[in-house]
Amino acid sequence: MARAWTLASRPAGTPVAKDFALVTLDSVALGDGEVRVANRWLSVDPYMRGRMNDVKSYVPPFAIGAPMEGGAIGEVIESRDPALKPGDLVQHMLGWRDEATGPAGAFSKLPAIDVPPQAFLGQFGMPGMTGYWGLLAVAEAKAGDTVFVSAAAGAVGSTVVQIAKAKGMTVIGSAGGAAKVEWVRSLGADAVIDYKAGPVVKALGEAAPKGIDVYFDNVGSDHLDAALAHARVGARFAICGMIDVYNDAKPTELKYLARLIGNRVRMQGFIVTDFFPRASEFYRDMAGMANTLKREETVHDGLEAAPAAFMALFTGGNTGKMLVKL
Amino acid sequence: MARAWTLASRPAGTPVAKDFALVTLDSVALGDGEVRVANRWLSVDPYMRGRMNDVKSYVPPFAIGAPMEGGAIGEVIESRDPALKPGDLVQHMLGWRDEATGPAGAFSKLPAIDVPPQAFLGQFGMPGMTGYWGLLAVAEAKAGDTVFVSAAAGAVGSTVVQIAKAKGMTVIGSAGGAAKVEWVRSLGADAVIDYKAGPVVKALGEAAPKGIDVYFDNVGSDHLDAALAHARVGARFAICGMIDVYNDAKPTELKYLARLIGNRVRMQGFIVTDFFPRASEFYRDMAGMANTLKREETVHDGLEAAPAAFMALFTGGNTGKMLVKL
Repeated sequence: MARAWTLASRPAGTPVAKDFALVTLDSVALGDGEVRVANRWLSVDPYMRGRMNDVKSYVPPFAIGAPMEGGAIGEVIESRDPALKPGDLVQHMLGWRDEATGPAGAFSKLPAIDVPPQAFLGQFGMPGMTGYWGLLAVAEAKAGDTVFVSAAAGAVGSTVVQIAKAKGMTVIGSAGGAAKVEWVRSLGADAVIDYKAGPVVKALGEAAPKGIDVYFDNVGSDHLDAALAHARVGARFAICGMIDVYNDAKPTELKYLARLIGNRVRMQGFIVTDFFPRASEFYRDMAGMANTLKREETVHDGLEAAPAAFMALFTGGNTGKMLVKL
Repeated sequence: MARAWTLASRPAGTPVAKDFALVTLDSVALGDGEVRVANRWLSVDPYMRGRMNDVKSYVPPFAIGAPMEGGAIGEVIESRDPALKPGDLVQHMLGWRDEATGPAGAFSKLPAIDVPPQAFLGQFGMPGMTGYWGLLAVAEAKAGDTVFVSAAAGAVGSTVVQIAKAKGMTVIGSAGGAAKVEWVRSLGADAVIDYKAGPVVKALGEAAPKGIDVYFDNVGSDHLDAALAHARVGARFAICGMIDVYNDAKPTELKYLARLIGNRVRMQGFIVTDFFPRASEFYRDMAGMANTLKREETVHDGLEAAPAAFMALFTGGNTGKMLVKL
């Protein structure tokens, strides 16, 4: 029997176990044009926290009691559509469950790039596209720029670090704790700040005495303020995520916001889905780097572990992409 | 004997009278290529507060004990340069004094537009350019947009309101108190928020139920937060000034900053001097509107009044352009 995680209650602040409920799905016969997919990998991502609130946002809220959604990689096990056949590996958005059924158009065969299937949930999937387009299109980063990346050990940040290095930029990452700092350094970052070791604004000033041209924001709050404090004239900030505020009703406090004016800083929020039409560009450029890019995964085993994997995103529990393996 | 205001001490927070000292200037004979100008009008502007701090910024700090600088309109009374002759009206940056001397190149004849000379310190000068370029170039506002302008009764804001209306936009202004609100309404604003009457975020939601496309920020803080709360997808914010933070070491608290992401908001800081090379474009477009644009001035009389005029900028003491008449 197929099972799925539903949202049992809307979290107040950080999600806890009782906000999730595992339910058995009714078995359904396939209609014409539909397929059945056994999920092999599920993605958990910080943006899902936003969908747990009942507020308008760029994606609709999860409904209470309904199976949640999210990126997943699976294998077609039954097909009533000529475009897909049993054995095909596909990516789709019906995650948080062990088996997914739906119209064939909701499932895409994996691109022909020689990386493990689960990479299409990370560096070659939505987090990778987020990093790629945020850095190159939103922040318009170019060779010679000094780039600051927060959450640099995460799925998005670790890709930003490596793409920036591959394109000739100086890169300063931030991460929490010695192990993550070391890993970000191994990705090629020129300097890495341990944000748990002291104020970010001070550490960034030491790492980038001439200031930064680009900030890739995954965090908000003290990292954003530090980036404002050290922005050079004409700096561009790609605002991708504020993991600190997803769970938190406290206002963001910025001491250096007015620097935006004198330094003509541009802050631009973005959503990766706006760049989906350019996916083939992304795959082409990334395929050329596939052999040199490093990936790390933090893997939780079994469908039962999905809420724990998700909750650990907010306590720095992952290096690289957080995944659930079925 | 010519006199000038100097900075006696760097203000802690809001400037007070003892931060300023009026001194007598040594009389100087003109060298070749130099002119002497009797100032008729002095400008006081919020950005000058930043120059009173001893920190790097987009303009260098005022030196303690030296005459301060600022926009001024004067009449040439002595000239050793063929480009200028006695009686010429000129604009220049040697304000805060009753008489200015220097190389002729530091003084520009007023453009041939039929407005009173002091308008070149306001709507046809730096504040006007700030509003014009901030709205049209930085925020890329266009006909049909809904535009929110803070400090809409000020020199910059009142120009933004009128240019926006002239270009076919819907305009919501904010101002403090019934008299200013009424004046902003008389400029053509579709709605005016009295920020002293209640929370801006609530009032803006009522004035713009479908949200805003553009925010012209003269204020920061609660106005910026309200604009973030009501930004539509693709909104552009021109960040021009944060009068609230010039005197204040408190951090800006933003509850709605993360809206930047989902709504792909762009916040762009800017400095009007970047647009000086486009001054002739500005004069041409503005000259065509000169007969319909309204201007209001708050005038303090005499050089002695300059510090009081300046300090009143921070307590909402002006409607339209704040000027000192000599």
